[in-house]
Amino acid sequence: MKRTVDDTRRLLREAAMVEFAEYGSDGTTVTRIAARAGVNKERLYAYFGDKDALFDEVLTEALEELSRVVAPDGVSFGDMGDVAGRTFDYYGEHPELARLLQWEGLRGAPPVNATVRVEHYRRKVAATAQAQRAGTIDGAIDAGHLMFMIIGLAAWWFSVPQLATMMTGAEADDPDERTRRRAFVVEAAQRLTRPRPDITTS
Amino acid sequence: MKRTVDDTRRLLREAAMVEFAEYGSDGTTVTRIAARAGVNKERLYAYFGDKDALFDEVLTEALEELSRVVAPDGVSFGDMGDVAGRTFDYYGEHPELARLLQWEGLRGAPPVNATVRVEHYRRKVAATAQAQRAGTIDGAIDAGHLMFMIIGLAAWWFSVPQLATMMTGAEADDPDERTRRRAFVVEAAQRLTRPRPDITTS
Repeated sequence: MKRTVDDTRRLLREAAMVEFAEYGSDGTTVTRIAARAGVNKERLYAYFGDKDALFDEVLTEALEELSRVVAPDGVSFGDMGDVAGRTFDYYGEHPELARLLQWEGLRGAPPVNATVRVEHYRRKVAATAQAQRAGTIDGAIDAGHLMFMIIGLAAWWFSVPQLATMMTGAEADDPDERTRRRAFVVEAAQRLTRPRPDITTS
Repeated sequence: MKRTVDDTRRLLREAAMVEFAEYGSDGTTVTRIAARAGVNKERLYAYFGDKDALFDEVLTEALEELSRVVAPDGVSFGDMGDVAGRTFDYYGEHPELARLLQWEGLRGAPPVNATVRVEHYRRKVAATAQAQRAGTIDGAIDAGHLMFMIIGLAAWWFSVPQLATMMTGAEADDPDERTRRRAFVVEAAQRLTRPRPDITTS
């Protein structure tokens, strides 16, 4: 049975995800990704452009999958504790995601094509601002800063796991500690966003 | 004039900091570090053991310097907004520090010798717990989790700068945005730690 273009693209994306999560974009090659996928590397160039463009596509796809599971468009951001807790769960179940974000951070350069992600984030920030206007979450904090840090509350644990272990004295794979960390993330997000009608906002 | 052992160690540590921050431990070699330092690589092995041990020593030293500047032993943690704000400033002025932490996170393995850092963190967590008992900061959150996230509030911006730019629509090197991010970090840390006598803690 002949492989379709979609099959080939999927094989390349899956292989790229494994290579990029482990070694970053600078740490792997188009040849290795193509070999892992069992696909001629000319296909990779034809479908994705180059290695950095493929990296961005893989990361964008991984983040969109997170969003589909945790906070699909249309979901209210009125309970940020819940959003943060489910984001924490997702990062725990998908260790490759925090790694991709870190590789991007270390690479330093902006995404090759940020349009999709910027548009995506704009919708999330707009949903946050809407919840602020509705009064279900506090409105005194900039919605973009807030949304950025809700992700940080969840992802920081998986970005610097050794620091987390040394600071808490507990291992990340201890189920009780996982539960405690999740409860902390939920509580922290609630404290960041709890409406405080007694305080004048400027 | 003959170089002392201390001079040679310092040259190696400085060269290692540059190489490790840029490329991580896996991305550089003892040969390159020694060449950058202008020191025979046998000295590196003799003084530091191996590459991973040197990485840990460089990171530990960088974190201790952060602590000396931001929160030296004996300083009260009664105002976590201030601690978080100064930590944010420090990370902004020392971009190599967030990078070293990220490389450690990506490496995955625990530090070769965690004793110094664990002891260091234990003192910070104890100071946090003391501020909680004194009632200057809220006591309902585990002191280790809290201290870990105070660092995260500050460092997350420098760990995933592209995400920050896309989410906020502003560049990190815009001085106004830097000021806004710092104010957010201070406010967030205060919200996490503000005493809430009206709420029963368990």
